[in-house]
Amino acid sequence: MTSNRKFILKKRPQGTPKQEDFELITENIPDLDNGSILIRNHFISLDPAIRGWLDDAPSYLPPVKIGDSVRATAIGQVEASKNNNFKPGEWVLGLNGIEEFSIVEEGGFTAHIDNSIVPSPTNYLSILGAVGMTAYFGLLDAGKPKKGETVLVSGAAGAVGSAVGQIAKIKGCRTIGIAGGPKKCERLIKDYGFDAAIDYRDKDSNSLGKAISEAAPDGIDIIFENVGGEILDASLLSINEHARVVLCGLISEYNTEHKGAKNLWQLIVKQAVIRGFLIRDYAPRFAEGGIEMAKWITDGKINFDEHIEKGIENTFDAFMLLFSGGNNGKLILDIRP
Amino acid sequence: MTSNRKFILKKRPQGTPKQEDFELITENIPDLDNGSILIRNHFISLDPAIRGWLDDAPSYLPPVKIGDSVRATAIGQVEASKNNNFKPGEWVLGLNGIEEFSIVEEGGFTAHIDNSIVPSPTNYLSILGAVGMTAYFGLLDAGKPKKGETVLVSGAAGAVGSAVGQIAKIKGCRTIGIAGGPKKCERLIKDYGFDAAIDYRDKDSNSLGKAISEAAPDGIDIIFENVGGEILDASLLSINEHARVVLCGLISEYNTEHKGAKNLWQLIVKQAVIRGFLIRDYAPRFAEGGIEMAKWITDGKINFDEHIEKGIENTFDAFMLLFSGGNNGKLILDIRP
Repeated sequence: MTSNRKFILKKRPQGTPKQEDFELITENIPDLDNGSILIRNHFISLDPAIRGWLDDAPSYLPPVKIGDSVRATAIGQVEASKNNNFKPGEWVLGLNGIEEFSIVEEGGFTAHIDNSIVPSPTNYLSILGAVGMTAYFGLLDAGKPKKGETVLVSGAAGAVGSAVGQIAKIKGCRTIGIAGGPKKCERLIKDYGFDAAIDYRDKDSNSLGKAISEAAPDGIDIIFENVGGEILDASLLSINEHARVVLCGLISEYNTEHKGAKNLWQLIVKQAVIRGFLIRDYAPRFAEGGIEMAKWITDGKINFDEHIEKGIENTFDAFMLLFSGGNNGKLILDIRP
Repeated sequence: MTSNRKFILKKRPQGTPKQEDFELITENIPDLDNGSILIRNHFISLDPAIRGWLDDAPSYLPPVKIGDSVRATAIGQVEASKNNNFKPGEWVLGLNGIEEFSIVEEGGFTAHIDNSIVPSPTNYLSILGAVGMTAYFGLLDAGKPKKGETVLVSGAAGAVGSAVGQIAKIKGCRTIGIAGGPKKCERLIKDYGFDAAIDYRDKDSNSLGKAISEAAPDGIDIIFENVGGEILDASLLSINEHARVVLCGLISEYNTEHKGAKNLWQLIVKQAVIRGFLIRDYAPRFAEGGIEMAKWITDGKINFDEHIEKGIENTFDAFMLLFSGGNNGKLILDIRP
């Protein structure tokens, strides 16, 4: 146990990331400083946000440096410790990297997790982690749904979107989901309880706008936006007065030269709000959200799916599933040897 | 006094309005029904919002019908009345039309104005009317400026923008104005007290973004947006965490196939908000805003300009000044014979 395979950023992607923008290297593990811990990462959370961290642009975290492991949330076990708060063998979650072993210095972000209360430790990367909490606080805190309102969710078959739809139903809203392809749309209705599903893949922006307005005869009060681009634009045409758009992600815009939102005028005439949402600042309230979410899961009110790929050597292909829509549920990479 | 010249909508403009989309016609004035009043319009407020009312699109007011006078706010005198609340000779303000005479039915929107307390009745179409109130409530209520914050205003030499900049200064903010051409930029500094002025005309989107970030070394806390398009996009790159974008107008996008906002991702990473603003719902609070604004004007803290064009036969050319940036101050059409 002295070598460490790391999935590093070799050069910054232009548009869609390519295999050659990254490299899987093997390094020796240096000795630990006092206060530091060595974590063996088992499961890596592959998230759209990672794409943003690869760009050299102003953001809420510094860009991943060329030559560094690509940043990602990971779950693992303490392998060695020079810190009294962490003992070898303990399970932890942290913002580490796509690498077999991570060294975290004193004061770094690492939290203990309790595997005895969840069916799988991976749940801390999905429904009980940032994904589930994004759905919970994004919808309830930023969107403020009221009973009887209509909630439109894009990327609705995704990890965040599917949870948003189910929480909105619990709160008494009518839910409309947008997803890519008939299979995903079927899952929206059957697995996640959406009242209506719209397949964007066979539609241009006009027919998408028409499908949305037909699915929302009373107009849309909340858009939970994961996708952006033409989908956001088409959705804006059906908003009601004082609508709230929770801007959680813009995955359609991250890799490509996109067209941009042309229907912002709807915000003026409807006195509506777009609120950019980051889960980061809600971390102190995760316990509150986790307790309620766990209750809903136990009561069978929330279904969630995890899509687990295997092998650090398959990182690139696994990551790209996010952009092709190839994953079914929260995308997680199992890098255990 | 039985004939009425009316500037009517002949067909809906595609993109930039053309002279032939309108017609100046002469009609006889019908007899008044009980409860109705006949108003002789003296001054017409020419506003960017009028462009939106010409489209057959969902909005906060129904589209102007083909064959109807183009809707506009107007000031005039009661010419004849079958309504006990209005007597001939009284001055009134209402959402009438671009026409010499308007008939307003009982319950229509018409308010008395008191010309004894203003230098000119046209002030009710500018600083003490919807324009001034848009600046006042848009900045203070939707933008919520705090002392020491940086406020960026686009269309800063315009009627709304120039007032926003001055109110922001009164509230202790640093103000940056964007306008078209060196003359307007000079007025921003000299007449409206902006701390910095940026001329967008000689800049592409990259150099505009650079100019904004240089003018706002501490970042931007509030964008008061009147223009949209590339200007909004460039501005978003410099926002601070929890920035507020007051979306008041998008004049650059009303007539042309535009590129759309591509930098909405900044809202996510900065947890920022775009709030669409309409002055309509603030009407009950106009007195509150008017009193404070009048005090600032008396104290010499707010300068405002009115650009008055003459003649209903010149309506089209006057209206188009809004889109070429040819007006200096609130654009008003004097249609007195």
